Amino acid sequence: MPPASNRLRVRYAETDTMGVVYYANYLVWFEVGRAEWLRVRGHTYRGLEAEGIGLPVVEAACQYHVPGRYDDELEVRTEGRLLSAARVRFNYEVVRVADAVVLATGHTVHAVLNNQTGRPCRLPVEIRTLFQ
Amino acid sequence: MPPASNRLRVRYAETDTMGVVYYANYLVWFEVGRAEWLRVRGHTYRGLEAEGIGLPVVEAACQYHVPGRYDDELEVRTEGRLLSAARVRFNYEVVRVADAVVLATGHTVHAVLNNQTGRPCRLPVEIRTLFQ
Amino acid sequence: MPPASNRLRVRYAETDTMGVVYYANYLVWFEVGRAEWLRVRGHTYRGLEAEGIGLPVVEAACQYHVPGRYDDELEVRTEGRLLSAARVRFNYEVVRVADAVVLATGHTVHAVLNNQTGRPCRLPVEIRTLFQ
Amino acid sequence: MPPASNRLRVRYAETDTMGVVYYANYLVWFEVGRAEWLRVRGHTYRGLEAEGIGLPVVEAACQYHVPGRYDDELEVRTEGRLLSAARVRFNYEVVRVADAVVLATGHTVHAVLNNQTGRPCRLPVEIRTLFQ
Repeated sequence: MPPASNRLRVRYAETDTMGVVYYANYLVWFEVGRAEWLRVRGHTYRGLEAEGIGLPVVEAACQYHVPGRYDDELEVRTEGRLLSAARVRFNYEVVRVADAVVLATGHTVHAVLNNQTGRPCRLPVEIRTLFQ
Repeated sequence: MPPASNRLRVRYAETDTMGVVYYANYLVWFEVGRAEWLRVRGHTYRGLEAEGIGLPVVEAACQYHVPGRYDDELEVRTEGRLLSAARVRFNYEVVRVADAVVLATGHTVHAVLNNQTGRPCRLPVEIRTLFQ
Repeated sequence: MPPASNRLRVRYAETDTMGVVYYANYLVWFEVGRAEWLRVRGHTYRGLEAEGIGLPVVEAACQYHVPGRYDDELEVRTEGRLLSAARVRFNYEVVRVADAVVLATGHTVHAVLNNQTGRPCRLPVEIRTLFQ
Repeated sequence: MPPASNRLRVRYAETDTMGVVYYANYLVWFEVGRAEWLRVRGHTYRGLEAEGIGLPVVEAACQYHVPGRYDDELEVRTEGRLLSAARVRFNYEVVRVADAVVLATGHTVHAVLNNQTGRPCRLPVEIRTLFQ
């Protein structure tokens, strides 16, 4: 499957005094991106949690190339990769729709957690196969 | 007891493209203010939750008088009032420390919820007496 | 014209420890709502700012009826009203799409500001007529 | 000089449905940390901007070790390093005060920007020497 794609528009709340998107908000959009990645594959993060599975972030990184601005329409492109039975990675690109300029790239790494026990666990098979 | 008082400094994250504090952040500072109101009276909101009590907001309002800016040192002044055995109100003033100018005033109204049942309940007596 | 309507999905970032939407985020969605109100009428808030006009919030209020949760699809319905040549009001309803339950209602009042002078001014005629 | 140190308390707004601090908020605290780093060295980021200098983030990363929770008191420890005449780096540790457990570590890299021209420039000498 191709990368998942989300469209969103920069909110005033997401900008700062410099007149550009505040840097932490890209991580929020990454969250929106990986939720969509699951959704287009027939699952939801809410459903995963309902089954007692969580995917807490253990590492996040972002490179900022060109600043986003208020009201820009953006596309978040998300790809998933299985690192192990208990660890996954998502890669992201945030692209300005008007001219296809890449504003930022980044990734997150997630553990797989049994929310009942609070202990690491393996991804359910039906989720694991999505990453292949 | 006098109003509870909190000092905080405006974060870059809390400003917007207009160069001033984004309006929703005052409600975040109100939350900080009412947590402090409880704390100086010997309780914490975390402790309240640990006892199974929540105080969800049912109404919030804010009047914006003068814009706050990045790095301003602010004081949040909070007063509590008992509206009924199952409803409380907090009033807030956000004051710029440098010149005592009031940037914003507001209030929140809270229900009292038993987090086990999800149903309204009465405030525990030891909390109720704080409001008098 | 009918109220403007926006669809959005609750982000994980917008929830809190209580498992519901944190109350300040409704004000962020109100911002998204009034931007859309302008957009469907052929204008944008970004365009307004480019002409040197700002609409700072002078008052905001929200009543919380039913909590929103992560991944809920919501509709923000926005109506505008002219209060005077230099003051406008927007009313909002946030509705859960799945069952049409109204989660919250609220309003904001805005001054009209000349961003060059920082002083109040009248709404440009082409904007004023949108409110009628 | 030793690392700069900030104390802050986790806000309800900064938590999420998982009952822990939402991951993007650590980047907000990093911002608070580097502002304090400058402040204890006799400068402010606001002052820097007033002189026409900006330090936009070009790279950010965070490793999440142990989740923070509502009302935790945290310490943000910040160290600065000069990468070149036009690039600086800050390293951060977020420590839970109660037991000195490190919740997260991270870094940011910043360009130096002339806000008038929007072009990269060198750090003013009096700021550059702070990093040594």
